[in-house]
Amino acid sequence: MNYIPGLHILAEIYTDKTDLLSDYSFAKDFFNEKVIFYNLNKVGEVFHNFPEGGYTGVVCLTESHLAVHTWPEYGMLTLDIYLSNNKKQNDQKARDLFEEIVRFYDSHSCSKKEVIR
Amino acid sequence: MNYIPGLHILAEIYTDKTDLLSDYSFAKDFFNEKVIFYNLNKVGEVFHNFPEGGYTGVVCLTESHLAVHTWPEYGMLTLDIYLSNNKKQNDQKARDLFEEIVRFYDSHSCSKKEVIR
Repeated sequence: MNYIPGLHILAEIYTDKTDLLSDYSFAKDFFNEKVIFYNLNKVGEVFHNFPEGGYTGVVCLTESHLAVHTWPEYGMLTLDIYLSNNKKQNDQKARDLFEEIVRFYDSHSCSKKEVIR
Repeated sequence: MNYIPGLHILAEIYTDKTDLLSDYSFAKDFFNEKVIFYNLNKVGEVFHNFPEGGYTGVVCLTESHLAVHTWPEYGMLTLDIYLSNNKKQNDQKARDLFEEIVRFYDSHSCSKKEVIR
């Protein structure tokens, strides 16, 4: 039987708080706090602001990765939470983290897809 | 109408070439060559080998990201190719890159999912 690494949540998140989408500084702090809170293991990260506004943020984990890409001009971001279960079961952690991120961005609407990989 | 950033390909790829899954050095060179070949714009990368074998590799792009997570003990990796279309249409590029990555890992089987985000 093939190995099943874990749960990948993909979401499109909409918000009027375009300041949270324009520059990564708040998001970078938030994601790093959550990595500690959820006892995840960071192995590297990339946060990059675009000159025209918006950013890419990726946190690489032994459990896989978290990724946000923002478009302040459209009031939206895409989110990936992919946590594999190599050492422990992380599905609920992924879902809880998703809810926290939706609240962080003060989202008024979002779409969410769960993919078991 | 909501903005549609672009195509995200998610795949589970199986191979007997466990040397390609154990250490990131070949993969890092390959991905960086492909970023240039496909005229993508890298803004950062993280490649991390695990002490027990296997690696995480993420290349962050202005077009979003490429990510691989490998499990040599199961002869498999997961792949994400997420290319947004902000400046140009990249769907075909994502599909072509997927085929090249499958060949690079000399895969004997794989599953592929396309998500329009």
